[in-house]
Amino acid sequence: MTASTSAANGKVEGFLKDLADQLRAGDTYGKLDKFSDEAMLAPFVLTKEQRRQISVACDIDAVIEARVRSFYQAVAAAVEKATRVETTTVLDLNHEGFGRVVIFAGRLVVLSDVLRDAQRFGFNSLEDLAARGEAFVTAAAKYVDQYREAARDDS
Amino acid sequence: MTASTSAANGKVEGFLKDLADQLRAGDTYGKLDKFSDEAMLAPFVLTKEQRRQISVACDIDAVIEARVRSFYQAVAAAVEKATRVETTTVLDLNHEGFGRVVIFAGRLVVLSDVLRDAQRFGFNSLEDLAARGEAFVTAAAKYVDQYREAARDDS
Repeated sequence: MTASTSAANGKVEGFLKDLADQLRAGDTYGKLDKFSDEAMLAPFVLTKEQRRQISVACDIDAVIEARVRSFYQAVAAAVEKATRVETTTVLDLNHEGFGRVVIFAGRLVVLSDVLRDAQRFGFNSLEDLAARGEAFVTAAAKYVDQYREAARDDS
Repeated sequence: MTASTSAANGKVEGFLKDLADQLRAGDTYGKLDKFSDEAMLAPFVLTKEQRRQISVACDIDAVIEARVRSFYQAVAAAVEKATRVETTTVLDLNHEGFGRVVIFAGRLVVLSDVLRDAQRFGFNSLEDLAARGEAFVTAAAKYVDQYREAARDDS
């Protein structure tokens, strides 16, 4: 799996496509229709310097919290596609940008991640974003395989 | 297991004791020291009429969100005592009082509960509060027993 983007039309593939789909799915009023996938994903990329300039002394912005949620929901959606089990994403983030995210299927936790300084949530490049998302999906699919019964327990 | 309270000194037992301990553990400045366990638990009890009078059109209050969190953290603590596995509580509650709470041990979800109108979070009586908490703990312990390997997987 590679994070290829086609410069010609701003379309993306793989995990980036899943994330773009996730953003469009939450776009009730079609405000994002005029943007290419690549343009829509631009806010997910922050240089080290940009990250450093974001204060973590401030409460986390609702827009950034939504961005964090979209990322993990895209992972959850990709896990569903890869494993055919239903997933749920739970994000517990306090106003200081600290918290935890869990994705589970049935009774199985397929991803658990601690978040710190979520105000600075971002990736060095689209390639890094894709690689991180795909690594999460691969690890989650492995757990679904390892704990088949728990992942399919809907009790 | 019964939810007995001793009227003489306001002390409580069983799950109510776990919940009281949870509240005192979060009381950094000892503001609750002067209250008996029973007095501290009083805000968890709401009559049907009291619940009806609480508007769910308003954003959920931080105090009520903390109360909801305490309840599930007390369940998590009681599960730890009963099963000797470590647990984590994740509460994803939006400002409209809708959300989900998950308690997990290792890779196992031992409790998953949907929250609606959390502004009205409360129980008919201390007995009901204790019964609900204890039912959650019993169910969770059963899952830890059923999925021993997943519950102890710290990967």
